[in-house]
Amino acid sequence: MQAGSASKTFAVIGGDSRQARMCALLCQSGHRVRAFALDRCALPAQAQRSESVRDACQKADCVILPMPLSRDSGMLNAPLSSQAAALSEVFSEMEPGTLVCAGAVTEEAERLAQKQQLRLFDYLRREELAVANAVPTAEGAIQIAMEELPITISGSRCLVIGCGRIGKALSARLRALGAAVSVSARKARDLAYIRAMGNTALHTAALEPEMAEFDVIFNTVPASVLEKPQLRRVRPDALVIDLASLPGGVDMEGAGELGVRVIRALSLPGKVAPLSSARIVLDTVYNIMEEEMK
Amino acid sequence: MQAGSASKTFAVIGGDSRQARMCALLCQSGHRVRAFALDRCALPAQAQRSESVRDACQKADCVILPMPLSRDSGMLNAPLSSQAAALSEVFSEMEPGTLVCAGAVTEEAERLAQKQQLRLFDYLRREELAVANAVPTAEGAIQIAMEELPITISGSRCLVIGCGRIGKALSARLRALGAAVSVSARKARDLAYIRAMGNTALHTAALEPEMAEFDVIFNTVPASVLEKPQLRRVRPDALVIDLASLPGGVDMEGAGELGVRVIRALSLPGKVAPLSSARIVLDTVYNIMEEEMK
Amino acid sequence: MQAGSASKTFAVIGGDSRQARMCALLCQSGHRVRAFALDRCALPAQAQRSESVRDACQKADCVILPMPLSRDSGMLNAPLSSQAAALSEVFSEMEPGTLVCAGAVTEEAERLAQKQQLRLFDYLRREELAVANAVPTAEGAIQIAMEELPITISGSRCLVIGCGRIGKALSARLRALGAAVSVSARKARDLAYIRAMGNTALHTAALEPEMAEFDVIFNTVPASVLEKPQLRRVRPDALVIDLASLPGGVDMEGAGELGVRVIRALSLPGKVAPLSSARIVLDTVYNIMEEEMK
Amino acid sequence: MQAGSASKTFAVIGGDSRQARMCALLCQSGHRVRAFALDRCALPAQAQRSESVRDACQKADCVILPMPLSRDSGMLNAPLSSQAAALSEVFSEMEPGTLVCAGAVTEEAERLAQKQQLRLFDYLRREELAVANAVPTAEGAIQIAMEELPITISGSRCLVIGCGRIGKALSARLRALGAAVSVSARKARDLAYIRAMGNTALHTAALEPEMAEFDVIFNTVPASVLEKPQLRRVRPDALVIDLASLPGGVDMEGAGELGVRVIRALSLPGKVAPLSSARIVLDTVYNIMEEEMK
Repeated sequence: MQAGSASKTFAVIGGDSRQARMCALLCQSGHRVRAFALDRCALPAQAQRSESVRDACQKADCVILPMPLSRDSGMLNAPLSSQAAALSEVFSEMEPGTLVCAGAVTEEAERLAQKQQLRLFDYLRREELAVANAVPTAEGAIQIAMEELPITISGSRCLVIGCGRIGKALSARLRALGAAVSVSARKARDLAYIRAMGNTALHTAALEPEMAEFDVIFNTVPASVLEKPQLRRVRPDALVIDLASLPGGVDMEGAGELGVRVIRALSLPGKVAPLSSARIVLDTVYNIMEEEMK
Repeated sequence: MQAGSASKTFAVIGGDSRQARMCALLCQSGHRVRAFALDRCALPAQAQRSESVRDACQKADCVILPMPLSRDSGMLNAPLSSQAAALSEVFSEMEPGTLVCAGAVTEEAERLAQKQQLRLFDYLRREELAVANAVPTAEGAIQIAMEELPITISGSRCLVIGCGRIGKALSARLRALGAAVSVSARKARDLAYIRAMGNTALHTAALEPEMAEFDVIFNTVPASVLEKPQLRRVRPDALVIDLASLPGGVDMEGAGELGVRVIRALSLPGKVAPLSSARIVLDTVYNIMEEEMK
Repeated sequence: MQAGSASKTFAVIGGDSRQARMCALLCQSGHRVRAFALDRCALPAQAQRSESVRDACQKADCVILPMPLSRDSGMLNAPLSSQAAALSEVFSEMEPGTLVCAGAVTEEAERLAQKQQLRLFDYLRREELAVANAVPTAEGAIQIAMEELPITISGSRCLVIGCGRIGKALSARLRALGAAVSVSARKARDLAYIRAMGNTALHTAALEPEMAEFDVIFNTVPASVLEKPQLRRVRPDALVIDLASLPGGVDMEGAGELGVRVIRALSLPGKVAPLSSARIVLDTVYNIMEEEMK
Repeated sequence: MQAGSASKTFAVIGGDSRQARMCALLCQSGHRVRAFALDRCALPAQAQRSESVRDACQKADCVILPMPLSRDSGMLNAPLSSQAAALSEVFSEMEPGTLVCAGAVTEEAERLAQKQQLRLFDYLRREELAVANAVPTAEGAIQIAMEELPITISGSRCLVIGCGRIGKALSARLRALGAAVSVSARKARDLAYIRAMGNTALHTAALEPEMAEFDVIFNTVPASVLEKPQLRRVRPDALVIDLASLPGGVDMEGAGELGVRVIRALSLPGKVAPLSSARIVLDTVYNIMEEEMK
């Protein structure tokens, strides 16, 4: 799907403005686009609005469905559509063998797709999407810190809990912006990585005595890492930003009692950089198509 | 005024919450603080609220006045005070020889201070303050770009017009965040610097043919650099952030006609990082005191 | 094995100056050290030279053997020793249950250790060592490029083939030094990572048309990636640095015929940063001990 | 002198291999080149070897002389020439009004040029050359540290004395490579800059108590900054690299007595990056020509 590849036909169905942005990106790359269930939303002139899922998907090289695929049980996630549609119904209008990409696919949706013999892929489970999404997540976290703190990132003392993709992308950027950065992890491999980057390595299990050092604490670990003993040491003017997926890594009730300021920041890519986010999904869709064509 | 220096007495008079933050920083460093004309504002418990300018300033090692010193002609800038006071009156209550630090001192204010034989210094004219302020300004500009653009800084194509303190601080940070950065300047010295940093060097006088390349354009030059010929080339989805002091470097009327989105961002340090900004002013005040004591 | 842990007893046996550096580091951390087969080599005053392997290892908490463990089949790698010793003999002098750490352990050595019921660990197989070693490897590669090229890294066009640990550590440093960096990979995940870092992503399988662009080409992939078709495009003034373990990734014969300058750079950590390298091995030994004590 | 400018005629006279590299760069850019006093040195095929200074300089748009212009009093610096020539003689063969660029021009040379009515410029006095040269100097200093120290830059504790062009270029690179960087200066402005970059700021006059902290100390200040009191504190395994122009900033005798290892590193650009260095001089020559043509 590089420059020079032949033009393809895409059906883009449901979802929010990110799906609309994908239509625009596809048209810019010279592809044909048929949209459905994106009624209350501007689309590029070259995109064609279809009358039905069937019309949109007929002979499409790929059908792009939203993330998450469905919000209410069994219904297509289509907030910009004037009509509700059951997923089973949507799938039933696609020809067997159709290549379908969607995000956060449930087991039920997978069963439905299998019944219809669709080739359904969940782009959220692709590693390259996770890698790429670490960047808007890290930038979003920095944006929140910039907005909420009365100090600059430069010269601030930051703790990043966790050294996965987001922890790495975030701690590198904080250091580049002039912060004094500590990163915590549990694995020897990650502690070695943290030191190799010039940052201070801490054990995630032994954060308590260090907590009072930090102006801002970013959590990326989806496990109970900031409980009352740790939160008690957080300085009153410090900020905790929890980036971990629900239920997060912070004892919210404890934080409330102790007066620790916590911001829950979820799904940052779509919020802080919807266009980059659409591009990331699209790159992943291209990769899936390329692999399927082989 | 380093750690270990003897405790001093400061009078902090007028100004907004930044002056209040300075009271807190001074108390934290173990200094005595007397505040006046900061009525509607919380102060640290150790700070003493004085009854008059005379009380506050008596035997003070340094009097800290706000920035700007006066807003309306001749009146002290004191938005948190319950009473208005003329600058002449304020100065007349200080003993001759008093060391006074203020920001944006007008010629008239200087004359008044001279009449009273005060040693008045404008911290805004100090080079170290300008150097230090480049950081919150650069961070503030990045924060605005993050907030306003649907894309990440990483991977974006940025133009920074001007290679002074702010241009340097900003372009280094953008590059570190993964952007493709072009910087424009006029002097051979600056063009050499830009290349030495690994960025693309452009001539400020020859920007027109390049303008369509950029997702975001930061102007730091207080001269007409973005006129209609340049603005016409700006992409419709691009953003211009004008950091130059008034009247700025962008033909605002032309931008309006052409539909170019321009954000004027002035006095960023106080807005995006008021505490860092207070610290920067205080460090400058300490330097002035140290030089005056020699 | 952090500061504050109790002092331990180590036997350090055989190897080159790196083993001697480990003795010094252990003494600095307050541990007891008994050395053997390090005759022609200065040791810290606190280290004790033992008369035999048996003396050295008796009641030792850990025995540290060199990397590689043996060079000639079956003999301990001990270039600084005045006597040769068979590995089987060395092992037979240790008590069953002894914790032994060595590098590049062969299957035969493992069998010998098992027979003697030793707990033998190969630190070279530990992930944290590989992570940490990526740094001296990347620095060593940069040092070679600085030494060999008549141009600065800043402003140079660099290609890094491969995006594993070394590729990541190297490309980040080159970019930070002001180079224009392209990185090649095969996996979608790695290509996404490369773009996320602000570098140019290339497919390792499609390097041929790009080769003429680069001043310096670093290979980190231990597979045939630079064959005649690719080498033919390399500029005559360019340099290829092959960091991949033997047999490397460059067709050396082809390069010779085409006059392409290639430098094979193996085992860089021990060569360019022997002290850091010793510390990295020691940190890994500490981790193994900690896990074994649990 | 940008791409697209008309082809010019250059006379390149005397000097070492750097002048030969300039001939090559000029030919690559499509200019006509006449060389003289570069006998023992390969030149590009398109360059023309002249019989005399007069032949070389006739109708040349610019004459490029070496750096330094003369080594022995009054003689042209021409180590690759088979004959010696007095500067007065060389100048006398050029037509009045000729544009001549040279490096390290003495007062006497200036007088001689004036007598002949030559328009003589010293490129070494140009600010853009100093700015650009800071990069190869910083890289050269890092290369020496990499070569001489048994540890990596990453994780090392570095002191940079002085915050001029070289101090800035060097400290930024060390930090980017993962070092813990302290920079010393005297001016409040520079101390503010150091902090703004996320590094530790020290007073150059108060280095003594800090000296034992550092693995490597880079001096960029051409004044007595490292005397016996400071050197006494330097760790025995530490390295001092003196980048300051002669007589340097280190008490060499004292260092010898105390056993402190000091490396004098002068004229690094020409040594570590001769091609980049030639390009930097040439860019400066182009700038001089452009200004003179206006």
